Amino acid sequence: MPFIQIDVTREGVTRAQKQALISGVTDLITEVLDKDPHLTHVVIREVEPDDWGYAGEQVSVLREKGITAQRK
Amino acid sequence: MPFIQIDVTREGVTRAQKQALISGVTDLITEVLDKDPHLTHVVIREVEPDDWGYAGEQVSVLREKGITAQRK
Amino acid sequence: MPFIQIDVTREGVTRAQKQALISGVTDLITEVLDKDPHLTHVVIREVEPDDWGYAGEQVSVLREKGITAQRK
Amino acid sequence: MPFIQIDVTREGVTRAQKQALISGVTDLITEVLDKDPHLTHVVIREVEPDDWGYAGEQVSVLREKGITAQRK
Amino acid sequence: MPFIQIDVTREGVTRAQKQALISGVTDLITEVLDKDPHLTHVVIREVEPDDWGYAGEQVSVLREKGITAQRK
Amino acid sequence: MPFIQIDVTREGVTRAQKQALISGVTDLITEVLDKDPHLTHVVIREVEPDDWGYAGEQVSVLREKGITAQRK
Repeated sequence: MPFIQIDVTREGVTRAQKQALISGVTDLITEVLDKDPHLTHVVIREVEPDDWGYAGEQVSVLREKGITAQRK
Repeated sequence: MPFIQIDVTREGVTRAQKQALISGVTDLITEVLDKDPHLTHVVIREVEPDDWGYAGEQVSVLREKGITAQRK
Repeated sequence: MPFIQIDVTREGVTRAQKQALISGVTDLITEVLDKDPHLTHVVIREVEPDDWGYAGEQVSVLREKGITAQRK
Repeated sequence: MPFIQIDVTREGVTRAQKQALISGVTDLITEVLDKDPHLTHVVIREVEPDDWGYAGEQVSVLREKGITAQRK
Repeated sequence: MPFIQIDVTREGVTRAQKQALISGVTDLITEVLDKDPHLTHVVIREVEPDDWGYAGEQVSVLREKGITAQRK
Repeated sequence: MPFIQIDVTREGVTRAQKQALISGVTDLITEVLDKDPHLTHVVIREVEPDDWGYAGEQVSVLREKGITAQRK
């Protein structure tokens, strides 16, 4: 009976990326916990950059300063 | 002090249905737990069909395949 | 595909009350939204009175002062 | 590793108010728990007045009746 | 800035399984969204079988009836 | 009608620190959004170090390695 919520900033996540997250998380749960995938639900919540704060600053402000969340 | 969150796919839930969910849940909490309704808050979160995954697939894809969530 | 979370203070909620909440909420969702109950999951989360704040005070403190959440 | 979620009705919260919430909560966590702010994330979720229920009624209905949430 | 919450019934999940979920989800987010893993937090929440309802029944009751969540 | 959830690892948070978080967050919401504090609820959720992952590792493992979350 797993339920997974993925919160992520709304910065151009595509439909294909969402599908990859949903199938990847469901596969992981199925393999690690041996759960029937028909009992696994995944919800993605995109959060506006004005509405996410990191280290005390809005992500929208961090982006205006050129600070990204990309992998180095 | 109850707080209830209802996550549901955004597929045409009407204002009247939302009101029915809110009053129904609040009545249930009041009766089962004997709580003052002025301490009970209910939040409905509608989730886009692209953002909800079931059994590893996006609900939007399931709907395109004709698979619904309706009661049999 | 509904998912419902019920947050309530841990103050002696019985197993029978939990079952009443789970069946009551599931019936409500099934009737109002016409959803297959096999797609509806409910999670009850009990929160310690030290960990719930209302109007700026811990519920444990409110209880010590004789302030309850019971219906009038 | 704190993560803070602020649910509030969508009733004209400004960008500056959001920044004040994010920096205020992060400062509070840093001071009370002595946590590195680079490990603190804050998410604000605005909820439509139709989607928030209080005492069994939609906030949108309460507002139509002239009932506000403002401090007295 | 992703935050992932995994809700699962408390039915003997081991420390190693938790580590596998955490590293697996973080790798997935890093690859699909190209995010710096130092910005990704994962929280696993184990829910007592009395507190999780599926199709209107407590999971503890389903287990007593011999109904499991295992993959077929 | 704000509801605030504070997720933090369970690493010795005291009752007084919880009270400071609850009153501090409630005051902040009251001042920034001009909300009646009787409509503001705060829930603190302590998460076991085995159940919180950061950068792909359990916090319990990070602590064993001597990596803390303390402010520098």
